[in-house]
Amino acid sequence: MDDQLKKLEKSIGEVPQVMHKWADSDPELKKAVAEMDSIVWEDGRLSRQTKKIIAICVAAALRDRHAVRAQAAGADKLGVEFEDVAEALRVTFLLAGMPAYVYGRTAIEDLMKR
Amino acid sequence: MDDQLKKLEKSIGEVPQVMHKWADSDPELKKAVAEMDSIVWEDGRLSRQTKKIIAICVAAALRDRHAVRAQAAGADKLGVEFEDVAEALRVTFLLAGMPAYVYGRTAIEDLMKR
Amino acid sequence: MDDQLKKLEKSIGEVPQVMHKWADSDPELKKAVAEMDSIVWEDGRLSRQTKKIIAICVAAALRDRHAVRAQAAGADKLGVEFEDVAEALRVTFLLAGMPAYVYGRTAIEDLMKR
Amino acid sequence: MDDQLKKLEKSIGEVPQVMHKWADSDPELKKAVAEMDSIVWEDGRLSRQTKKIIAICVAAALRDRHAVRAQAAGADKLGVEFEDVAEALRVTFLLAGMPAYVYGRTAIEDLMKR
Amino acid sequence: MDDQLKKLEKSIGEVPQVMHKWADSDPELKKAVAEMDSIVWEDGRLSRQTKKIIAICVAAALRDRHAVRAQAAGADKLGVEFEDVAEALRVTFLLAGMPAYVYGRTAIEDLMKR
Amino acid sequence: MDDQLKKLEKSIGEVPQVMHKWADSDPELKKAVAEMDSIVWEDGRLSRQTKKIIAICVAAALRDRHAVRAQAAGADKLGVEFEDVAEALRVTFLLAGMPAYVYGRTAIEDLMKR
Repeated sequence: MDDQLKKLEKSIGEVPQVMHKWADSDPELKKAVAEMDSIVWEDGRLSRQTKKIIAICVAAALRDRHAVRAQAAGADKLGVEFEDVAEALRVTFLLAGMPAYVYGRTAIEDLMKR
Repeated sequence: MDDQLKKLEKSIGEVPQVMHKWADSDPELKKAVAEMDSIVWEDGRLSRQTKKIIAICVAAALRDRHAVRAQAAGADKLGVEFEDVAEALRVTFLLAGMPAYVYGRTAIEDLMKR
Repeated sequence: MDDQLKKLEKSIGEVPQVMHKWADSDPELKKAVAEMDSIVWEDGRLSRQTKKIIAICVAAALRDRHAVRAQAAGADKLGVEFEDVAEALRVTFLLAGMPAYVYGRTAIEDLMKR
Repeated sequence: MDDQLKKLEKSIGEVPQVMHKWADSDPELKKAVAEMDSIVWEDGRLSRQTKKIIAICVAAALRDRHAVRAQAAGADKLGVEFEDVAEALRVTFLLAGMPAYVYGRTAIEDLMKR
Repeated sequence: MDDQLKKLEKSIGEVPQVMHKWADSDPELKKAVAEMDSIVWEDGRLSRQTKKIIAICVAAALRDRHAVRAQAAGADKLGVEFEDVAEALRVTFLLAGMPAYVYGRTAIEDLMKR
Repeated sequence: MDDQLKKLEKSIGEVPQVMHKWADSDPELKKAVAEMDSIVWEDGRLSRQTKKIIAICVAAALRDRHAVRAQAAGADKLGVEFEDVAEALRVTFLLAGMPAYVYGRTAIEDLMKR
């Protein structure tokens, strides 16, 4: 794992498998994505924990099974708590419908500690 | 404005016009929505401010012009700061694409104080 | 208006402006769309009225402002009643979120008689 | 199964597994969802059968594999007929594209009697 | 396989399983879809290869796992090259977000020769 | 207009207004987006013209009024021809439904020369 990915892992808890793969197969894209990632996730006005919660809510709203699970997978390592995400996902329920909530809830029940 | 809507206004900053309209034309639905709203927005583990930021990010990710503006419209009154939402919307950029970010950014530039 | 479009107007209440335009500018596409339309909307096991209600619910769920208004515009002529669509849109609320419902509700309030 | 869920099962044919789970883990949300559900699905101007068909069409249009299967799973018990849903899904085809239709068609072929 | 499907296979590389099934179970729909397909895919100003690339990018942007795989499955047979699709999918990344890109990238890594 | 934006304008025909604005208000984001843009749009295995067509098809499939118009606005300057985009948008029709096609078709009729 190169330095860029190591730094990213610290920010998001777990670097998705695809990023490791792209490090070999498409280094130009991997570099661009890692830079974008660092701007998105780096410490700022909001904590990395809050950004992780937002990411899970957005991925669930998009009914994106892979993204929601990729985000949920790293949440524990960042110290995000299950109950906080569960509460946040109610916003997804209201704005994107009950099934969108189920995408998120199922992912955190499968991948986060309670 | 009845008590349920008054309470809601305190939680979300500004009750959407449609809710006022439905209070007359479809009281049963208005009641159900207001109840759901109160479960979503009420004080809990996350602050109302954080939930508002999540709502703007989700609405932008869905490319929903009306929802993103309805959410942004009440943000100032809750004390949500422009720069916090701007930072949060980067998560929307990564997960839903640059144009989704533009939906959110444009709404907060139009409707929030800087 | 050619025969194909006349028949379509009978099925859906109002032929969208684009179809008239394409009749000149892209007759091949217009023909294909009109054929597809006739398979979709023709009398069958479900009435045209029920199909129109489904179309409004689907267009609202997709947050598609143009489609939902195009569908709502022809609903009165087919004898679809406002209250039936309003009730059906609750399904859209549950499955696609409150703002999706607002897309549909606003369209029928603007374009249908009560 | 408590009374609220029993009543819901009568309306929608089959209560999704998640609802049973939430009855224990998040009773507040379960109660809110069940109330919303009862407003959506209860007998009204449209029959429960028609609402079920609309729900399948909307879930398919959203390309929501879980929602379309959850809806299709209860359809037989309500007396909804395969051919009626198949015809209705043509609206989804027109408004949301051929692959959205495939989501719906596949679900009813797997889960409904013919 | 009837003549219409044979012709289609030549245009798109591989006819989806559902089309073969519908040839028996719903001949009217199969006919309409095949006609629409031939207008979409037939040789024109753009090559079939370019249209295939567009289809993969669109299906990925919609986060549609089935459509993106159905499109990728026929790409080799048409002579579409892996690297061309990989480059095109960057447009999907920008417009629909990183996870949408992952849908497309994963599909072509699984289903296309490199 | 700084060098990065000038280079981008050459690749995509017209830099969206928001980019100019962000150059002042959020230089960090502007830089990241411009870098991502250059990886997406730069000359490669596919021509800038083909990528522009893909972008219009994807934006239309997402029913994204702003993105589809932003993409269409620069198409003429790149030498993209109306008829090529019109043909490509049929792929959007098939995969995302007739209304998605209308989003694209309307944008190119408004913003491109014929």
